[in-house]
Amino acid sequence: MSACPAAVLSATEPLPVLGRDVRVPLVTGGEASYAALDYAASAPALQRVWDDVAAYAPYYGSVHRGAGYLSQLSTDLFENSRAAVAGFLGCREGDQVLFTRSTTDSLNLLAAAAPAGCRVFVFETEHHAALLPWERREDVSVTYLDAPRSAGEAVGTLERALADREPYGPALVCVTGASNVTGELWPVRELAAAAHAHGARIVLDAAQLAPHHPVDVAELDVDWVAFSGHKLYAPFGAGVLAGRADWLRDAAPYLAGGGASRTVARGEDGSVEVEWHESVARHEAGSPNVIGAYAIAAACRALEEAGFEGLVERERRLVDRVRAGLAEVPGVRVLSLFGDDAPRVGVISFVVDGWNSSHFAAALSAEYGIGVRDGLFCAHPLVRTLLGGERDEPGECGPTDEGRPLSAVRVSFGAGTPDEHVERFVRAVGELVERGARWLYRTESGRCVPDAPAAAAA
Amino acid sequence: MSACPAAVLSATEPLPVLGRDVRVPLVTGGEASYAALDYAASAPALQRVWDDVAAYAPYYGSVHRGAGYLSQLSTDLFENSRAAVAGFLGCREGDQVLFTRSTTDSLNLLAAAAPAGCRVFVFETEHHAALLPWERREDVSVTYLDAPRSAGEAVGTLERALADREPYGPALVCVTGASNVTGELWPVRELAAAAHAHGARIVLDAAQLAPHHPVDVAELDVDWVAFSGHKLYAPFGAGVLAGRADWLRDAAPYLAGGGASRTVARGEDGSVEVEWHESVARHEAGSPNVIGAYAIAAACRALEEAGFEGLVERERRLVDRVRAGLAEVPGVRVLSLFGDDAPRVGVISFVVDGWNSSHFAAALSAEYGIGVRDGLFCAHPLVRTLLGGERDEPGECGPTDEGRPLSAVRVSFGAGTPDEHVERFVRAVGELVERGARWLYRTESGRCVPDAPAAAAA
Repeated sequence: MSACPAAVLSATEPLPVLGRDVRVPLVTGGEASYAALDYAASAPALQRVWDDVAAYAPYYGSVHRGAGYLSQLSTDLFENSRAAVAGFLGCREGDQVLFTRSTTDSLNLLAAAAPAGCRVFVFETEHHAALLPWERREDVSVTYLDAPRSAGEAVGTLERALADREPYGPALVCVTGASNVTGELWPVRELAAAAHAHGARIVLDAAQLAPHHPVDVAELDVDWVAFSGHKLYAPFGAGVLAGRADWLRDAAPYLAGGGASRTVARGEDGSVEVEWHESVARHEAGSPNVIGAYAIAAACRALEEAGFEGLVERERRLVDRVRAGLAEVPGVRVLSLFGDDAPRVGVISFVVDGWNSSHFAAALSAEYGIGVRDGLFCAHPLVRTLLGGERDEPGECGPTDEGRPLSAVRVSFGAGTPDEHVERFVRAVGELVERGARWLYRTESGRCVPDAPAAAAA
Repeated sequence: MSACPAAVLSATEPLPVLGRDVRVPLVTGGEASYAALDYAASAPALQRVWDDVAAYAPYYGSVHRGAGYLSQLSTDLFENSRAAVAGFLGCREGDQVLFTRSTTDSLNLLAAAAPAGCRVFVFETEHHAALLPWERREDVSVTYLDAPRSAGEAVGTLERALADREPYGPALVCVTGASNVTGELWPVRELAAAAHAHGARIVLDAAQLAPHHPVDVAELDVDWVAFSGHKLYAPFGAGVLAGRADWLRDAAPYLAGGGASRTVARGEDGSVEVEWHESVARHEAGSPNVIGAYAIAAACRALEEAGFEGLVERERRLVDRVRAGLAEVPGVRVLSLFGDDAPRVGVISFVVDGWNSSHFAAALSAEYGIGVRDGLFCAHPLVRTLLGGERDEPGECGPTDEGRPLSAVRVSFGAGTPDEHVERFVRAVGELVERGARWLYRTESGRCVPDAPAAAAA
């Protein structure tokens, strides 16, 4: 595969994405091509995904019990999308692929399906979507594990916590594949081995991993995996939960409604008696998001055909370029849990001495046409740990009061990112730090917005 | 408005939808333009909706804390979509518009938000999405009301049930605006008045009403309304729950995750403490389905601009044509709860003496290129009541054993349906009943599929 032209191309050229020709105005005059460097939140759609959706859209029809030709075509296409995703994820025979609305939804679904009495183990470093769903269950307890400072420490911490649990009942570990703050890869295979050695299940939050790196459920030996379409170049409102069928089959349906119910009848006493499906339909009540599911399947196919080997290699080069560029700018500190040598995907967060991150991100947008993100990235405990201690809320403008940033800037990229975006970003960070922003900014409706040219105001 | 060219046009011509030029093969040879007559399950996208989505797609960006130009544009567009929907629904000041994945999801969300001790009143005639979510709450009780045989009986039945409830605590009525089986309109305004007179809240399931008929929340005086994008010509995985803010603000977040959580911090004891948002974000954890929400807003705008007056008038003419046509075919019985004179939308279910409905629907598809639906339409108690007594599951092929259909055929249409589809449907029903299907059919994987020409097999 790696010798074929497509793979060679993908190693050097970005994959075509929507929006690659969009130009945006600059506050300093003129315009620039938009540099979308917030892939970790939402990535642009692959052109291939859009083309597949556009080609299908006229054939869209009601699925499942619709008797018409387009209904049957749409039903087949929807159900076959599961197989495409299962192949992409390297699922085992018997694994189920459920379509949800997002990773958040997938993990809330699994939280609802965990057996009563289950104990969940989760590092405090997780995204809120992986951190918070479990404690909503009154019959599930959660152990939050302190941030480890190396992959090895993560495994050791988990092993001890699992071994020490009392009672030694059903347990679930939830762990990210790649941090949405630092981009660092977590030792998923080793954590899965630890989980299974101690009689626990494990779910992989692959929201940040799947778009950047091959995921092989069977090889990693994780029980479930969750990811989002909108981070995998398929922003049509769908996500995935894939893995073991048993907990899902035994759980109450996630939503109550049509599709999930096999038969519904009035009882003698006026009640309503329901028999629920046991298949994937059990947790997919309501008309499914056919276009969303098909778009995810299209993205899986497109990434497989492009060749992950080349994509990973190319992204590693971009990561190295950004990190080397940031290292040369005085006062810039890249946030890291596992240290410089940890393998990582194209997600890098940093702070700049004396700058509020909202201010810095606003200047990157207004003066350079670069779209990044600032804040705590829905991973508050992790970012606070990395910044050192408790801080206030983000969103402030102007220089920081004590020279210490209250939040971080995150730059993230992927298969559609051209080299020029990364080069422009590195240059922009250097210029902003060296000579300051060209405009003054003010806070408006919680956003940092350009106010007036810095020279005119001075 | 009614004098402008667009409105006049819409009274006589269907609105352009995707798929209007799709041709499908006929088992009897040749092909036909596809007649999508399953709008009540999923309607085709309006061409206007598709065009708006396609125009926006290159500008898609991460919403909320993204600092880039496209992130801000996408955030504004997503948040402004709420206002477009609120206008379309005639919401009151202070009402909230939440984006969900579907009507099913919206009603499950409201069920999760109902106050403890709430008593829910729902007619057995509802779609499962409106019938089943409530009983999942252990601290909520449900009263199922018998099928009424007139709009007046519905109001009287509800009034008595509400007045008789003990204790006289918080209560919620859930009612459809138009039946997904009979298409008949329910007396929403009168039911809302009854609910409020007895200290209850009311939620309107407008899944089948909103695509066909103006909905005015303030004028109907309902507390909430729910509908789905995929039935409103916007099949991009989003739905809506709109209405009163109080129950939603006081309820636990629907999903736990980012976006819904304002602050998250480790406590002294190792726990995790969460402060949740009180705005709509509280129930919209995870990255929102921006394209889905924007598509719904685009559909609302397109329907308003086309003029509902003309759309309603045109659909009424199509309903009359189908009902008159079916009335002329011997052995065809249209299902009705409220009788011939009840106002209704373009949703008509019927049975044919001696025919299994799956068989009839399969023949309409294979021999005429017409896509309808057969089954119990996720409203089992209602369809069983209308068919008279308990029956088996649908899906069988061949003639019925006792001459009595086990399920029904549903034909449904809307703003994109050309007259020709309806004319072809009426003609096809007549021909199938008069001279039988031209092919034999067999059951395969739960579907009724063509097997061999009837003449060759005879």
